[in-house]
Amino acid sequence: MVKQTKPPVAVTPDLCLSTPAPVAGKRVYAFSEGRAEMRELLGGKGANVAEMARLGIPVPPGFVITTETCRDFNTLGQRFPADLQLQVDKALAALEAQSGRKLGDAEDPLLVSVRSGAAISMPGMMDTVLNLGLNDRAVAGLARKSGDVRFAWDAYRRFIQMFGDVVLGIDHALFEEALAEARAERGVAEDTGLTPVDLTRLVDRYKLIVRQATGAEFPQEPEVQLMKAIRAVFMSWESQRARTYRRIEGITGLAGTAVTIQAMVFGNRAGESGTGVVFSRNPVTGERELYGEFLANAQGEDVVAGIRTPEPVAVLKERMPGLYDELTALSDKLEAHYRDMQDIEFTIEQGKLFLLQTRGGKRSARAAVRIATDLVAEGVLTREEALLRVDAMSLDQLLHPTIAPDAKRTVLARGLPASPGAAAGAVVFCADAAEAAAARGDKVILVRRETSPEDVHGMHAAQGVLTATGGMTSHAAVVARGMGKCCVTGAGTLIINEAAETITAPDGTVVKAGDLITLDGGTGEVMLGAVETVLPELGEDVRQLLAWADAVREMKVRANADTPEDAARARDFGAEGIGLCRTEHMFFAPERIRAMREMILAEDEAGRIAALDRLLPYQRADFAGILKEMAGLPVTIRLLDPPLHEFLPQGEGAIAELAGDLKVPVERLKDRLHALHEANPMMGHRGCRLMITYPEIARMQARAITEAASQLAAEGVETAVEVMVPLVGLEGEFNALADVVRDEAAKVEAETGHTLAIKVGTMIELPRACLRAGEIAASAEFFSFGTNDLTQFTFGFSRDDAGKFVPAYRERGLLAHDPFASLDTDGVGDLVAIGVARGRAKRAGLKTGICGEHGGDPASIAFCHGAGLDYVSCSPYRVPVARLAAAQASLKAPRTVLAAAAE
Amino acid sequence: MVKQTKPPVAVTPDLCLSTPAPVAGKRVYAFSEGRAEMRELLGGKGANVAEMARLGIPVPPGFVITTETCRDFNTLGQRFPADLQLQVDKALAALEAQSGRKLGDAEDPLLVSVRSGAAISMPGMMDTVLNLGLNDRAVAGLARKSGDVRFAWDAYRRFIQMFGDVVLGIDHALFEEALAEARAERGVAEDTGLTPVDLTRLVDRYKLIVRQATGAEFPQEPEVQLMKAIRAVFMSWESQRARTYRRIEGITGLAGTAVTIQAMVFGNRAGESGTGVVFSRNPVTGERELYGEFLANAQGEDVVAGIRTPEPVAVLKERMPGLYDELTALSDKLEAHYRDMQDIEFTIEQGKLFLLQTRGGKRSARAAVRIATDLVAEGVLTREEALLRVDAMSLDQLLHPTIAPDAKRTVLARGLPASPGAAAGAVVFCADAAEAAAARGDKVILVRRETSPEDVHGMHAAQGVLTATGGMTSHAAVVARGMGKCCVTGAGTLIINEAAETITAPDGTVVKAGDLITLDGGTGEVMLGAVETVLPELGEDVRQLLAWADAVREMKVRANADTPEDAARARDFGAEGIGLCRTEHMFFAPERIRAMREMILAEDEAGRIAALDRLLPYQRADFAGILKEMAGLPVTIRLLDPPLHEFLPQGEGAIAELAGDLKVPVERLKDRLHALHEANPMMGHRGCRLMITYPEIARMQARAITEAASQLAAEGVETAVEVMVPLVGLEGEFNALADVVRDEAAKVEAETGHTLAIKVGTMIELPRACLRAGEIAASAEFFSFGTNDLTQFTFGFSRDDAGKFVPAYRERGLLAHDPFASLDTDGVGDLVAIGVARGRAKRAGLKTGICGEHGGDPASIAFCHGAGLDYVSCSPYRVPVARLAAAQASLKAPRTVLAAAAE
Repeated sequence: MVKQTKPPVAVTPDLCLSTPAPVAGKRVYAFSEGRAEMRELLGGKGANVAEMARLGIPVPPGFVITTETCRDFNTLGQRFPADLQLQVDKALAALEAQSGRKLGDAEDPLLVSVRSGAAISMPGMMDTVLNLGLNDRAVAGLARKSGDVRFAWDAYRRFIQMFGDVVLGIDHALFEEALAEARAERGVAEDTGLTPVDLTRLVDRYKLIVRQATGAEFPQEPEVQLMKAIRAVFMSWESQRARTYRRIEGITGLAGTAVTIQAMVFGNRAGESGTGVVFSRNPVTGERELYGEFLANAQGEDVVAGIRTPEPVAVLKERMPGLYDELTALSDKLEAHYRDMQDIEFTIEQGKLFLLQTRGGKRSARAAVRIATDLVAEGVLTREEALLRVDAMSLDQLLHPTIAPDAKRTVLARGLPASPGAAAGAVVFCADAAEAAAARGDKVILVRRETSPEDVHGMHAAQGVLTATGGMTSHAAVVARGMGKCCVTGAGTLIINEAAETITAPDGTVVKAGDLITLDGGTGEVMLGAVETVLPELGEDVRQLLAWADAVREMKVRANADTPEDAARARDFGAEGIGLCRTEHMFFAPERIRAMREMILAEDEAGRIAALDRLLPYQRADFAGILKEMAGLPVTIRLLDPPLHEFLPQGEGAIAELAGDLKVPVERLKDRLHALHEANPMMGHRGCRLMITYPEIARMQARAITEAASQLAAEGVETAVEVMVPLVGLEGEFNALADVVRDEAAKVEAETGHTLAIKVGTMIELPRACLRAGEIAASAEFFSFGTNDLTQFTFGFSRDDAGKFVPAYRERGLLAHDPFASLDTDGVGDLVAIGVARGRAKRAGLKTGICGEHGGDPASIAFCHGAGLDYVSCSPYRVPVARLAAAQASLKAPRTVLAAAAE
Repeated sequence: MVKQTKPPVAVTPDLCLSTPAPVAGKRVYAFSEGRAEMRELLGGKGANVAEMARLGIPVPPGFVITTETCRDFNTLGQRFPADLQLQVDKALAALEAQSGRKLGDAEDPLLVSVRSGAAISMPGMMDTVLNLGLNDRAVAGLARKSGDVRFAWDAYRRFIQMFGDVVLGIDHALFEEALAEARAERGVAEDTGLTPVDLTRLVDRYKLIVRQATGAEFPQEPEVQLMKAIRAVFMSWESQRARTYRRIEGITGLAGTAVTIQAMVFGNRAGESGTGVVFSRNPVTGERELYGEFLANAQGEDVVAGIRTPEPVAVLKERMPGLYDELTALSDKLEAHYRDMQDIEFTIEQGKLFLLQTRGGKRSARAAVRIATDLVAEGVLTREEALLRVDAMSLDQLLHPTIAPDAKRTVLARGLPASPGAAAGAVVFCADAAEAAAARGDKVILVRRETSPEDVHGMHAAQGVLTATGGMTSHAAVVARGMGKCCVTGAGTLIINEAAETITAPDGTVVKAGDLITLDGGTGEVMLGAVETVLPELGEDVRQLLAWADAVREMKVRANADTPEDAARARDFGAEGIGLCRTEHMFFAPERIRAMREMILAEDEAGRIAALDRLLPYQRADFAGILKEMAGLPVTIRLLDPPLHEFLPQGEGAIAELAGDLKVPVERLKDRLHALHEANPMMGHRGCRLMITYPEIARMQARAITEAASQLAAEGVETAVEVMVPLVGLEGEFNALADVVRDEAAKVEAETGHTLAIKVGTMIELPRACLRAGEIAASAEFFSFGTNDLTQFTFGFSRDDAGKFVPAYRERGLLAHDPFASLDTDGVGDLVAIGVARGRAKRAGLKTGICGEHGGDPASIAFCHGAGLDYVSCSPYRVPVARLAAAQASLKAPRTVLAAAAE
């Protein structure tokens, strides 16, 4: 389900916080005096119910005490402002008049709820009191009037318990113990087994608890109850947990909480009574229909408690057709008013329908798109508004299988949701086993402590990947996302024993090779057995929405793709080029890795060149395949990046085998491997540093690229190759390698007679490269910000190791987001901005893009838009997300406006 | 010996390059027309000899062709400008007139040298021709006039050989072969064995070689010889090797080379003839005396060739007293003129003294200081000038033993000169062996593949440290420099087998445990056996110079010191506080490491606190010792920084022992060690990240610090403690830990009743910290730039691994300096400047310093001065260097001037 945090009435959040100027000294607003826009003054809940009342929707009557009163209360050292009591008295009198009942009345008492509610929702953080107004006299009146003695005494018992806990600060365990004793005395397991007489006795015990804890009687005067409850709500604003919540969520600038006092209505009275929830459209499919549930003769809490099972709301059509029609009409009215699908709580009290709350309904990604496009078709929304209604990130769900919503599951552990989708299969513990099983047609899940490039063929063969270590941007996560393959990483509570081929779960369950497990890459859950999954459809409505997005956005969207298959998929998803084609993955097929290893272990340049010559045809064919798929679109190819030891075998067996292959003594091979070992490989001999020491690698790759492009030119296929030098920190590094590439490309052009205009640029992924962007741009024809590595170096966080402390940082509120998932705009973003500014100062109109994992994250995409980048590049499966996110960024802050503001 | 690159006449290099405007079209200058300031136009050599001529010093007459002529020559496609020939002809005629000889004359021929010389010296890069003017006629005249037939023909033979090689481009091996044949025919081993007749035949053979190689006769016309030689010198400016040299040395903006044509004089003629070199003061001790060597009846090249051994110049006093007095007078005159000690080449030709060259003499560090202070005492220099005359870095030599200059040595390998000084001792391969040997009073050299904190006690015990891996800022290097202990790192050609306890050198020599070796930490040489060393003295003149420096400098100088002994030494060297006291080294003593390991391996907070409580008294005592030594001065104490696994044992034996100690199963201990393993520890769970997850560590350290300071306060000892939080990247990290420290300090203050005003600040060592300096400075009371780590993260260079590619970068000219040795001002410096600016914008007058290895590097100190830092902190042995370098920075650019320029 999509979290729909957008306020229902307005498109921009700013609007919701703009409040009409309050009347001086006015602390209490009747519902009829309020409006949805008064959120800041009346809180979200108060403004919402006031808006419904204003629209003529039947809501239980009531009034709201303003957030400013809360602020004044706290400013005054937690004392009520002098002018509050009189205004509350007046509003209460009006409420009694409107409802025809009186608080504490012995015949037909008015009961009210007292609820907190700030301008921004803080679920569960502040207090609420229900059934207020009950006392020894009123409980009799309620019993008489409702004709249900048990209901009345149960309500009284609940009120004392809630008031005792929330307002009087009595340990709620005392009440729970008394309740448990009452059940024990009656010999029943459930509260529902208590008789009315039991409940009257329980009320006596509760009163005793209150007397013993506070030294005073439970207050019988409803007006005293009310003012004490208001005080408790105000005080809960400054409670430790509420303050902590606001700090963590970054909520600042609010005056306090409002207090909404509203007449209670009861769906559990005799006659046509009940309670339910409806959506104005189907929240799963988006279809236009009244959708929801109804529970006859019940209160809302009964639904929540799950004691009784509700029925589809359609049952009302037959049982109470008039009320059903009324509900349908109100639902339509609210949707039309708020111009969005609504989630409505209602109660029917003895044949009278009350709406308790309405809000923008949460919906699935599929429904969100359908509703948005339908609302455009219905003339309710403009295309632009529709684009802003869909959470860009949610589109990701539409491209991967997911766990069926109602599937039964036994969760073994929860790791990080590293790559979305769901997959079930038999457990295998090594890449070769995965490949063998896949060759037999079996579905497997590859389980590793962590993955390395040696595992890539196994990841390809598996349905999903599970690792015990690593974060959201670990090798497993990045590669799996690139493949669009489900992956759960960092499932640290699982003990993965690769040698014994077992997984031990915290509860002691042992999973062996061949046992079935299921991964949910959207939640990080690891489940026992094969759990049912559902397949996605990329419907016409999604294509429609993305077409509108394309018309609006100002940034291009490219994909990161290393194979012709990935390239084709990316193009199908709407990619306008490849922003990052990694060449190292091309070296892992068995016939290639051997040549690669020979190259690495060669004693001299001649030996390296001989091995590289054997790799050349493979690379040329790979490049030709990718360039053909992307005919006419730009393709950025990164030269070899990782440290050489990543290509070498690990483990005694593999080393002995390689030594045999290469006909060198095992000890000599081990010495060489030892020499290649690095203390901090991420900051070691990799990227362009490798090619500065071994320029023949760059030369081979430049030749393979240019020959591939020439070959396609001969076939009449248009190409636009951009060669990217990785990990440049010194302008001299770039210049030296750009010379090699340009020189080799010129040679091939001369040999083949095709002029290809290959561009040479660099990946900006070191802080120093951002600082020296001007000098680098003197020769570099484009910049692509590699924000994965830039994040690592700016923070000094190794993404392989950050799992040891980043979760604690998130918990403590030190990091609002995982900086590897969502770009750190304050730090890393500052460097990106410096890089763009300095680069463009030297080379006007320098083409800039981003090709880190952040290229598929909507918040990061919005940043890139603001920073003036020309494109973002992300994994193929994120391309639709990026198209929509880029459009949203343009709608929220068009570049023409940004440029004008900058002037 | 100190490299004295300062030009002799002027204090600022800029001055030397400012040239009087040349006369339009004037391409040739007689010596009498030139001056020292015309370096850019006449080249260093030409300007220098012209200056001597102008002063009335007897120099062989001659003239100079300007550098601009060279530029024009190259601009014209390597053709002479039309107006050159006439000017050369005129100058030559004047030279002939002055010398009374004619070029090519059959009676008394003039011979000339034709030398290159640019404004900046490029030794050996460009060409020279000697004895020009000889031909078949002149050789007879020379023989007659000199009365030495052999000399004349040998000169002719040498001229043809040199001209053939340099001007005609003939492979010099052809001449060498002919010479070898001549020796073989005569049956002698040395050229001196050839008779005059042999030489006339050899000249014939040489002429044949020329004819065969060029198809033309050897040119007999002296004017043709001259113009061809000039052309050759001009062309050598654009030779591949000269261009490469200029690129690597960063020499740009020069017009070309000048050509100096000067009459030859001969010290090997009959009568009072000879050649020599003198210094106006003793270049080893600095004493005021004529110091040098003389070789009778010889040419300068004979001295260089080492065929004959020269005598002390004092022999002239008896043999040619008049000439000795003249030489002394000229030496004094030149020293007075240049206001610096001179290195003078002279030749005596038949009783006539000629000075060939004078320049600022190279001198030892000791001599440099003595000369500078003596020149002040003599009224020649001001104190400020004297401060600028001494290479700050050279003071480092004065504090360490060095290899005796003339000691015999067998060099096994050359590593990096990681920590200066020299040391000899028996080889040991582990820290415990080092400690045991030291306990027995034996001197040892600790040899390791690489060191870790576990080796620190062994490093303490050893005379010096040798490692096969690691760079200038590896663990071994940093710790050794801190200890002032000689260290050679990265001696990669040595195969160190720790298990077998052998070192195998490239030449096959095997050194075993107990064998003696000697290290030279100033050159990186590893030598077999015990080579003689000499001990330093920090003389009164050094103290005098440093006192002058202290009066001038605007930055404070602190030291990095971890023990009371280091602190005392630093204070003795003039440190004004401790800028970095690392606390982790305090945990390695045997009784402490066990508690540390228990802390790390504890299952919960209670277990950690119990172990930390045991460490507290040790830390408190350490801090008390250091604070007492630094009474009254600020001491910056860094909280625990390295990743925890650095404290844990490596190797099966040590692990088993620890498991026994801790009474846990070996397997469980191994699992824990595995869990602590990191892929990139430099970017892992360390620094403040450790204390965010385990705040009890910071709490213990804060308590130990505050209790130590309180204890001293009770004794009446004043302290100024600055607690430093390492590796902060997020303001929240700093705030959280500053809260812990301030809270604990306040508790201790309340307990003891001493108010200590402990400051809490942070180490700025992540790019993000520089960018977020404003937010961090909101709470941080000081910044200390940790430029070691900042360099690592800005470049993305692991200092442990950079040895794999940084040397290649240096060779290719991609890096002018090792960025770990000298601060990268363009990149890292830019971040430092951003950090200072943003920090001070938030907190006016924020105290800032630097505590990386760069704090002891003069170029980096100059940068820190310009960046407005308040202090630099370096290892104790670098404190004198830093005091002088800071003074030099202030003299070159006083901050008042910098501030005015910035406005």
